[in-house]
Order: sequence, then C-alpha cells, then structure tokens
Amino acid sequence: MADVENPVGHILEYAFNPSSIAVVGASDHPFSFGYHFLRHLIDYGYRGNIYPVNPQRESVQNMKAYRSLADVPGDVDLVICCVPTDRVLSLLDQCPSRNVKIVHLFTARLGETGRTQAVDMEKRIQTRAAELGIRIIGPNCMGIYSPEAGIGFGYGFSREAGKIGAVFQSGGEATLLIQNGMLQGLRFSKVVSYGNAMDIGESDLLDYFAEDENTEIIAAYFEGVRDGERFIGSLRRAAARKPVIAIKGGIGQAGIKAVSSHTAAIAGSANLWDVAFKQVGVVRAGDIGEMVNLAMLFNWLPPVTGKRVGMMGGGGGKGVISADLAEGAGFTLPPLSLSIRSQLKEIVPDLWDWLGNPVDFSIWGDDGIKAGEVPRLFSESPEFDFLIVQISDENPMADDWWINIIKMEVENAINISKQGLKPVIAVLSSAKPGFRDFENGRWRTISEYRDKLMDADVPTFDSIGEAVSAMSKFVAFWNKR
Amino acid sequence: MADVENPVGHILEYAFNPSSIAVVGASDHPFSFGYHFLRHLIDYGYRGNIYPVNPQRESVQNMKAYRSLADVPGDVDLVICCVPTDRVLSLLDQCPSRNVKIVHLFTARLGETGRTQAVDMEKRIQTRAAELGIRIIGPNCMGIYSPEAGIGFGYGFSREAGKIGAVFQSGGEATLLIQNGMLQGLRFSKVVSYGNAMDIGESDLLDYFAEDENTEIIAAYFEGVRDGERFIGSLRRAAARKPVIAIKGGIGQAGIKAVSSHTAAIAGSANLWDVAFKQVGVVRAGDIGEMVNLAMLFNWLPPVTGKRVGMMGGGGGKGVISADLAEGAGFTLPPLSLSIRSQLKEIVPDLWDWLGNPVDFSIWGDDGIKAGEVPRLFSESPEFDFLIVQISDENPMADDWWINIIKMEVENAINISKQGLKPVIAVLSSAKPGFRDFENGRWRTISEYRDKLMDADVPTFDSIGEAVSAMSKFVAFWNKR
Repeated sequence: MADVENPVGHILEYAFNPSSIAVVGASDHPFSFGYHFLRHLIDYGYRGNIYPVNPQRESVQNMKAYRSLADVPGDVDLVICCVPTDRVLSLLDQCPSRNVKIVHLFTARLGETGRTQAVDMEKRIQTRAAELGIRIIGPNCMGIYSPEAGIGFGYGFSREAGKIGAVFQSGGEATLLIQNGMLQGLRFSKVVSYGNAMDIGESDLLDYFAEDENTEIIAAYFEGVRDGERFIGSLRRAAARKPVIAIKGGIGQAGIKAVSSHTAAIAGSANLWDVAFKQVGVVRAGDIGEMVNLAMLFNWLPPVTGKRVGMMGGGGGKGVISADLAEGAGFTLPPLSLSIRSQLKEIVPDLWDWLGNPVDFSIWGDDGIKAGEVPRLFSESPEFDFLIVQISDENPMADDWWINIIKMEVENAINISKQGLKPVIAVLSSAKPGFRDFENGRWRTISEYRDKLMDADVPTFDSIGEAVSAMSKFVAFWNKR
Repeated sequence: MADVENPVGHILEYAFNPSSIAVVGASDHPFSFGYHFLRHLIDYGYRGNIYPVNPQRESVQNMKAYRSLADVPGDVDLVICCVPTDRVLSLLDQCPSRNVKIVHLFTARLGETGRTQAVDMEKRIQTRAAELGIRIIGPNCMGIYSPEAGIGFGYGFSREAGKIGAVFQSGGEATLLIQNGMLQGLRFSKVVSYGNAMDIGESDLLDYFAEDENTEIIAAYFEGVRDGERFIGSLRRAAARKPVIAIKGGIGQAGIKAVSSHTAAIAGSANLWDVAFKQVGVVRAGDIGEMVNLAMLFNWLPPVTGKRVGMMGGGGGKGVISADLAEGAGFTLPPLSLSIRSQLKEIVPDLWDWLGNPVDFSIWGDDGIKAGEVPRLFSESPEFDFLIVQISDENPMADDWWINIIKMEVENAINISKQGLKPVIAVLSSAKPGFRDFENGRWRTISEYRDKLMDADVPTFDSIGEAVSAMSKFVAFWNKR
C-alpha cells in the first residue's frame, strides 16, 4: 500500500504525486537510464510503491523485479518507460490492467529523428494511448522532478522543495536550470521535461502550474507549440497569476533546424513568439544563466516599481563602471540627500562632502569600518527604491584586514534584507575560483560570503551588468502589473 | 649594488625595471599601505636595492630603515610614496640628491576630493616635480605590477609574466583584471594604475606599451584624458601595432560625476569616445568580465576573420539555444557537408542523417564515445572558420560514466587547439561551485576540467552568450585589419 496521498484534483497529480511507480526497463547497469530512474526513486526517498519491471531479472538494485507490467501486484499510477520504441505498444496494452494513469516515455528516437518509420511509430503510440485513455509525458524527455514526492531525473538534485515550477521541453536545459539554480540557492516545487509533447504538452502544464499552490514562479523553456490558440490562453492565465520567466528555443535558421531534430517541434515565427510573450507579460530570458538571475529576484525580492538606485561598495573605478551600466539599463542614481549628507557629516567629517552615489568604499581609509553606517542611512532614505551592495572584492589589503571589510558589507546587506528595510541585491564581481584556486584563502573567503548572502535570501550576482539587466526586467514586470 | 639591469630606453623603464626602490612611509602596521608596498617587493622577489624610509624606526619588516630619503646610501630609481599630502613637497626636494627618476604617489586625497586646498596642493606638487625634473605616476593610484621585476600592488598576484600589458586609471579595476584574468589562466607583462595622472598619463603609457617587446595585447581603463589630440595619436599608434581592449568609465550622468570624485578626471563626451574608439579600431569592453573574455581570445587564438562556426557538445536544448545566440551575434552554422555525412555514415550508421550543426551529443546513447570523432571531422572541414566545443555538463549520467564523456570532450578540444587544426573555444555553462559545493564530486570534476582547458590555452567561457559576444568583437577586429 502506498503511504502517499494523491489528491486527484488534476490528472498531473498522478505524475507529480503518484502512489505507485513502475520503472519499465529497470536495470542494474549503471550506464542505462533504467538504472538511473530507479536509483533516483530510492535516492530521493520516494515513499510510494516502486515496481521494477524487467523480463530477464528476478531482482534489480536489490528490489524484487517483475517480468511485465501485468505481473505487478497492485495499481500503478505512473509508469516510467525506458524500453526501446518497439516495445512501447505492448506496454501500453498492459496499462489498463494495472489502472495506469500516466506513462512517462523516456523512450526516444521517434519523431525527432525525422525518419518515416519512427514518425509512424510515434503516431501509432499516440493513437493507442488515446484509445486506452492513458496519458503520455514525452516521448524523448526526462520527465518528472518532484522533490516532495521523492522523484527526480538527475543526480544531486535537492530533496528540499522551493517555489519555482518549471515547464521545460528540454531535459538537458531543465537539468542545468536545477543545478545552476541550486548553486545560487534556488529550490523547485516541481519540474517537468516533456520532450516531443505527444499528449501532455505546454498548455496542460501551464494550466497545472498556474493552479498549483506550491508554485509561485513559473520557469519555462519552449521549442514549439501544438495548438497556438490554446497556448496563448494558457500562457495568459498563468502569467496573470504568477510571474512566468521563459526562454524560446529556435529563433534563427540553425536553431529552428535544431528544434526539429531535438523534439520534432515546429519552432514557429520568432516574431509571433515575441508578440505573444510581450502581450501576456512573460519575462523573457535568453539562456539558463539569465533565467537563474531573474528567478533569484522573483524568488526573494518584494515587488519593485521604482528606478532610483542607491549603490555602494568597492572602489572608485567599480562605482564608475557600475553607475554607467545601471544608467544604461534605465536606472537613475539620485545624488545624496541633505539628510544623508548631514548624517555623514557626523560620522565622517573628512568625507561627507566628497562622497556620492555610488559610495566609494576605498576612500574611507582608517574610517573604513564606519562605512558600515552607509547601508543603514541608504536603507532609511526615501529617495532610493532599492539598493545595490557591491562587495569590495578588489580590496588590496592583506587577508586579515580585508576579510573584516567583506564581512561588514555582507552582514549589512543581510540585515537590510532581513529587516525588510529596502529591497537589496548584492554583486560579487570576482570570477569564481577554479579547482586549483580553492585552497587560496581569498577565494575561499569570497565563496563563503557568497554562500552567506544566498543563505540569507539576498539575490547575488556575478557582475553588475547581469544585476542591472535582471533588475531592469524585474522592475518592468512589476510596472506592467 | 643592484643586480637588475635597466636598459634606460624609456623613462618608464625606471618604473617597470628600477635598479632601486625607496618605500617612503614604510611601515610594520599591516593595515598601512607603507606596509603593503614593502611587503610586495619582498614577496614578489624584487632583486634591486630596497630602501624603507621611516623617520621613527630603526628597522621596518626586518630591514634597515632610513630616517629620510636623503639618508639612503645610494641612488634611487623609483620612490613609492605612502605619506600624507603635506609631506610630499619636502620628499620631492630630497629626490635630486638620490638621483630619483620617478615617484609613484600612492598618496591620495588631492584633486579628487574637489576641495580647494587639496586641488591647490596637487598643483604645487605638480609644479615642484616639473621644476626638479622628477616624473610622477599618480597621485591617488596603486602604481606598478611588473612580475619580471618583482614589483606588485596587491596580494596573490602571479610572479609569472605574460603578454598582456594594462594601462588602468583605476587601481581597483586593475586588481580585478589581474585576479579575474589569473583565474582564467591569463598573465601580464606589466600593469600600471595611474590615478589622477598629474604627469605621466594615458598617452605616455600607451606610447610605452606600443613599443614594449614583452607586451602583445594592451588592456586599458580610461576615465578621462588631459590632451585629447595627443591621446588620439597615441591610441592610434598603439592600436595599429597591437590589439587594444579598452573600457571607458564615465558615460552617464552618475558615472561622469563619479569619475570626478574618483580621479579628478573630466569624463568627456560619451559620443567623442565612441568615435575615437571606432576610428582607431579599439576593441571596446563594458566591464572587467568582458575584458577578460576578450583578452583570452587575443591571448590564445590565431586571427579569425570568418563567421562560419561548427558547434558540438551538450544536449539538444543547449544546441538550440546556442545556435540562436550564435546567429544573433552574427555567425552562421553551415549544415553538415556531404563529406562529413559520408564519414559519419561509417562511424554511426544509426545517426548520420539525423545529426546536424550543432551536433547533439545526447542522442549518441551507447555510441557516446564515438562522438569523439566529431571534433576531428569538424576540424578537418573547410566549411568551418572556427569551432565551439560545449562541454556536456548537463549530462544526466552517474558520475563514473559522465566523467568519461567530459574527459573525451575536453581532450578533443585540447587536441584540436594543440595541433592547430582549427581555432577552437570551449563553453562550460555550469555555474561555478560555491564554498559548500566544493566537496561535491561533480563540481570538483567540472572545475578540474575547466582548469585543464585553460592550462592548454583553450579560451573557456562561462556561457555561450559570453562566448559568441566576445568572438563577434574578435572577428570584427581581424576583419578590420
């Protein structure tokens, strides 16, 4: 008996929270996906019934194996199918006897090969599944990552759930989103890679995530759509309820061709996608790196509609470049107010008239530690809509001294964020260390403090350029609301 | 006696290869720059005479200290001045007696403060130095990094020299360039941070680097210029001889204001800078991250003038996004030639007609290791001007298997590069690991292979977007030649 409750409000609950899963093609061979998918259920602590199916084995990965799906002693909500294309039809025929609701076809080399026989087989599978009332995710996809249910499709995924749901046509890009997002501190409610979208597709998934209570932000990667009119409707409803951050893959000539051999999708006119995304208020990303940057903002910041930024930290050159890039992205840097200046006069009589926005932390000299007052002053000042704290990673001091400055800057950013004084983001523009640099004290320290910022839910960017570009889309989104 | 030979062809040789250095304001206090600058000479193995000057100490950092510059027992080529502004004039007066050629004024809080008294003092220092025939670097700057001579201005700089020379008005940005460049495998011939440019300025430095035999690439960060006409001439001559990659700091309203309080420079019209950079063929960067990306290309790749790219590696989604971004940056992805297809037919009879450009490595399945033939086929194909090898970091296999694929991809890229078969760059789009992720085997492996690529002089980028943006400027540069 399963100990997972399945509140069957939506058919996709059988995919994200199934009571029982059969892995068909389950294997002991660690190169095989029949190995991986079973391994993941064990590793991620799936609590429902697991049925490995393999006609040639008594047991797989120390679990009892069944010769066929029909031999499984109980109902099966979800089948993960890892067998080749020629065995899919007979598998489908066994599904009704086990009351199967959804089959995830990891099985590939169908329509995406462009070959007549494979395209025909895909159509036959589609027809048979429809006749039998079995819903299909895929084929040619990685399927489900549902951390709360204990289902995953890659190694090292977090068991902790978050509030980002992802609708991804590509399993590889979904993997990059999960892994790179995790490195930046993000967590996911549910992720689905849906490949060729033979049955359950982009619109069904958007409809589901629009309603899903555990999903507050939707990330999506689309290559094509099957029903444009339905898609626009689903996208509009989803985007009206939750921020939708999306990548459209397949814009140029080579990209469109690549889409066809990847998921057999028809990429469609780049211009139509532009118009659709703009009309419904989708936040568009160009690649996974940008998507992660945007997701950090929607995940952690309150809505921001103003464009006046208070900036501090780092040396003069960093301030100059940062001001240029922020203004280039549409922000303004108001001069310091009389109120701030008069308070600075008390704190640093030598500097109060010389300082500006951005605040150059390198000129404080022996008063360096007093620079810690600046974030507080800025966070109390109504002329700023949000703050950018740059960590002084170019600081030329020896490590003992330099670490005090970094620590102060990071703690100040965290305090402002925790107390909700003002929306705040951080920038740590040092390149991240490589393997051989990791024993270097400076890089270890920078990495530790980067982690501290993210643990405290402060969106932290690798460069000021990425920070202001993401903030610009974030502010535009909230202004449109 | 100094054991450093000084081929006094150019006055700046006294800065980059001095026979003797006095650190005025030398200190034992590790928060003081009089401590740092002396420490660096020792740490970096400066082989000339070092004279710490401190009126109150018999010794500093275990070296004999002198009460004044005049007390130093020998000639001094370079003075590093770390004392406050009110002691600079009397220091200058002592310079002729020690035959001083150049004074690096780390000393700050002069013109950049905007205060009348400080501006006056800067003028008095300038006049006195000119009268005495002493050349000045600075004030308000970090000065010299000359790895071969053993001079540096920050901790952890490499003692190994490279072919990039840097002319930087900002010491903080110069530090970021050196540190981030080092993490990407770059090394420097000489770097100078010149601050307020009271005497030796952007044009003198460009003239020097244009002639310097050890410098093959010039990186520059300018905030303002003193003599526009001379500057254009110097920039033109330098850019005619060597690639010049430059950032202009101070474009927008806040940036221009920040320039004035940073180096007392007049930022000038953004439009004039645009025109000047374009006319003389400067490769423009927006920030240090982009500058490092461009420097990797000029440092390691032969000239590339064609725009036809062969791309491979990673899964289908990565290929789609990458093709879109490459085409968006002005490149084309020619379809596979008949010759490549016929060779693929031998190697992978199941896939030869399905594969395209970019080559999706995720569909090779059990033939995965044969994908190793693709880079060779591409490198021998005249329809590609250069190759982009994407590392399959989104690979969903368990570590043992996945590492074999990564290893193969990295070794193939290195082979093509070493044998000079075709210009090749690599992309590793995984976010770099943070501190707590570093014990994770997957991230360690990715970092190790990133380092292997850079050790083999393969320009390696964090994202396909950064890669094609940098390549686009690189190809445009060589086409203009």
